[in-house]
Amino acid sequence: MSWETYLAEQQFRHQDELLQFLSIPSISSLPSHAGEVQRAAQWVAERLATAGLEQVQILPTGGHPVVYGEWLHAPGKPTMLIYGHFDTQPVDPLELWAHPPFEPTIIDDRVYARGASDDKGNMFTPILGVEALLKTEGALPLNVKFFLEGQEEIGSPQLPAFVASHRDLLACDLVLSSDGVQYGEDQPSLLLACKGLAGIQIDVRGAKSDLHSGIYGGAVPNPIHALTALLASLRSSEGAILVEGFYDSVLPLSAEDRAAIAAIPFDAQDYQEQIGVTALLAEPGYTSQEHLAARPTLEINGIWGGFQGEGVKTVLPAEAHAKITCRLVANQEPAAIVELLTRHVEKHAPPGVQVTVHALPGTARPYLIPADHWGNQAAADVLREIYGKEPYSIRAGGSIPVCELFLSHLGAYTVGFAWGLMDEQIHAPNEFFRLSSFQRGAGAYCKILHRLAEK
Amino acid sequence: MSWETYLAEQQFRHQDELLQFLSIPSISSLPSHAGEVQRAAQWVAERLATAGLEQVQILPTGGHPVVYGEWLHAPGKPTMLIYGHFDTQPVDPLELWAHPPFEPTIIDDRVYARGASDDKGNMFTPILGVEALLKTEGALPLNVKFFLEGQEEIGSPQLPAFVASHRDLLACDLVLSSDGVQYGEDQPSLLLACKGLAGIQIDVRGAKSDLHSGIYGGAVPNPIHALTALLASLRSSEGAILVEGFYDSVLPLSAEDRAAIAAIPFDAQDYQEQIGVTALLAEPGYTSQEHLAARPTLEINGIWGGFQGEGVKTVLPAEAHAKITCRLVANQEPAAIVELLTRHVEKHAPPGVQVTVHALPGTARPYLIPADHWGNQAAADVLREIYGKEPYSIRAGGSIPVCELFLSHLGAYTVGFAWGLMDEQIHAPNEFFRLSSFQRGAGAYCKILHRLAEK
Repeated sequence: MSWETYLAEQQFRHQDELLQFLSIPSISSLPSHAGEVQRAAQWVAERLATAGLEQVQILPTGGHPVVYGEWLHAPGKPTMLIYGHFDTQPVDPLELWAHPPFEPTIIDDRVYARGASDDKGNMFTPILGVEALLKTEGALPLNVKFFLEGQEEIGSPQLPAFVASHRDLLACDLVLSSDGVQYGEDQPSLLLACKGLAGIQIDVRGAKSDLHSGIYGGAVPNPIHALTALLASLRSSEGAILVEGFYDSVLPLSAEDRAAIAAIPFDAQDYQEQIGVTALLAEPGYTSQEHLAARPTLEINGIWGGFQGEGVKTVLPAEAHAKITCRLVANQEPAAIVELLTRHVEKHAPPGVQVTVHALPGTARPYLIPADHWGNQAAADVLREIYGKEPYSIRAGGSIPVCELFLSHLGAYTVGFAWGLMDEQIHAPNEFFRLSSFQRGAGAYCKILHRLAEK
Repeated sequence: MSWETYLAEQQFRHQDELLQFLSIPSISSLPSHAGEVQRAAQWVAERLATAGLEQVQILPTGGHPVVYGEWLHAPGKPTMLIYGHFDTQPVDPLELWAHPPFEPTIIDDRVYARGASDDKGNMFTPILGVEALLKTEGALPLNVKFFLEGQEEIGSPQLPAFVASHRDLLACDLVLSSDGVQYGEDQPSLLLACKGLAGIQIDVRGAKSDLHSGIYGGAVPNPIHALTALLASLRSSEGAILVEGFYDSVLPLSAEDRAAIAAIPFDAQDYQEQIGVTALLAEPGYTSQEHLAARPTLEINGIWGGFQGEGVKTVLPAEAHAKITCRLVANQEPAAIVELLTRHVEKHAPPGVQVTVHALPGTARPYLIPADHWGNQAAADVLREIYGKEPYSIRAGGSIPVCELFLSHLGAYTVGFAWGLMDEQIHAPNEFFRLSSFQRGAGAYCKILHRLAEK
């Protein structure tokens, strides 16, 4: 029997299993639901074992657990680490759900439930793919490890330490991530990059206390004026970052990179209208699309100082503050960027006020898989075959910390191989997943494991 | 008997009366104390009548009342309007008072009570001066009207309408204000000018809602960046205001004006240390003292937008706001300044965001009495005689709306003629007034009324 026939025959059983999985309220952010996250881990471990995985274990992390399973009987062949997560977002506001979020409901091609798309439905597909290959071919064409976690929705707080202390267990040649999306129902995409993050807070202090603007105005330095002058020096009106050395370690965009970015549909007019702005910025020499996808950014996230109430208060404030974060691209290092920002602020600090800078928490290194990486090429081949279209190469503006985590600790790039679609209401009421994606995903994993074995 | 002897003989009775007056808790900001403000008005009215004033009336304003009294039997002589107020600030924080604020306590030369210096002690001195002249000379050398109010500490909300509708009643050649200070215990001063006020709020709106800085950063205009660029364009780092036309109607400083400003002691080092800053600003071409005293200012009083909490939130905010006020000098007009500021903001508004400007409430026109005005000269003569020193000509950075109010509605300049000192804790716990000032003040009013009658 072919894996295709197996998956077709088992389709309704797999669907029933998905409904079971989705009915576990494994909300990782609620301490009261820790037992449910554990129950989901148990369900996943049992399902891995049923699929034919070995050494299946629920491993403690100090927080929510991870589930591990392996099939390593393909000596000389590469090892894939398959990543995903079985925890979910909370469900508030509950009243906006048409069906109870943990009573999965199928309507036409859609299964509605919290976690359906993010990430249980997606995460289940590689398990089914591996099962189909083992049941029909008796073996996998390469080595596979599953590494599924239960704390993604709370930022995976224990994951970095776990990965760092389990390098041998998790050693692999490539990571396939089942947590992600495709560009559209009939348009595949590959995740090429995501941005890093580094930020600072600037605190400006003037007089010891707020002063009467009539008595002191004009002679006593005003921290808000000092801060606005400082902030205005960081970025040009077009969006170019004016911090010395900021772009030094940025990998230049090749003509191919630019063509790949330009290939993704982008209607500036539509985009502006949707967002509600009347113009877009673009760093000189780059399109707005390139700036969004592949150029670092600097944004003031917050500013405050002095009087913010109704009416008027003629105060010369004692302090003013701003928070700034930068999204970084390969090969910018967060610590180096914080250093450059700090030096810029120190250099431009106006006289008479005290300016201090501190790094904000939550830094992330940028991630970029080379477009011609064998893992990326394999995924592109499979997607091209399934969809009949060239996949778009997506560079995400946000950060996906696991990609960088696996790269720095395991030396392995991550290829996103998942089936979510943008409209599936993840993190929102009435989340759903398409059953067609569920079926397509299982088969796609069969294909990519074969394709990667050819490496 | 001379008025000097009269005042000396009555000294202790007058002091007792002051304690009575100070024991009325006439806090104008507390609705619960409206009856006490009324009681203070009653006390003042009775005291005016006792002093020999005629047509004494408590007049309704729609809010706290005013008290009027007159002596108009000097045909051909000028008419003085004597201004002061009988309401007080609140007393919080009560626990910081060494004595109950409305149980006046004399210790050495000081009487401690809320309102002692601001303004009951000061306000009582012209009443005693007029009484002394009437009792000893049988007449005043010129015409006098008292106009004492009960709402100064809440910004005199009903006063402009009252003055506008009582021009005949209040008609005068000069106003003497008993609400104010002297430079020091042995250094007199005259108030030459106070600044006006005009302000705007700038609201910058970008996208319809806060956005993810990773997904949208770099292409979507950030209102905080737009706002900081706008604000940075308003003022040079030295404090010069860069708004086109801003200085056009400012009266230039003469060599005499500059000499008068320079004559007032100013130790920049001390000043900086007291305030806690390491440098002072000064508009190019002017000293810090000149900037403080006689040049218009522009200060950002408050700014806010985006995330202000602990830690980091990578938001691209939808809006940002700032409040700005300008202190104006003669002959700047608040409405014209608002217009110039608005035009500047509109001209410099960056593309992609919506920038709106609205005028802030609470405008005031600047006030300046010519240094050689006869009222000013008379006051200078009297102060010179009493203190044996040339008075400093003070230009206040704040606004004193009554000066401008009397000038525009009655056509009369105001000469500050009062005895408070800077250390007397007005608006703060343990407010006090010097009994020596109280005595000096009554006599000074006798002298200035004679001096002004010579005009």
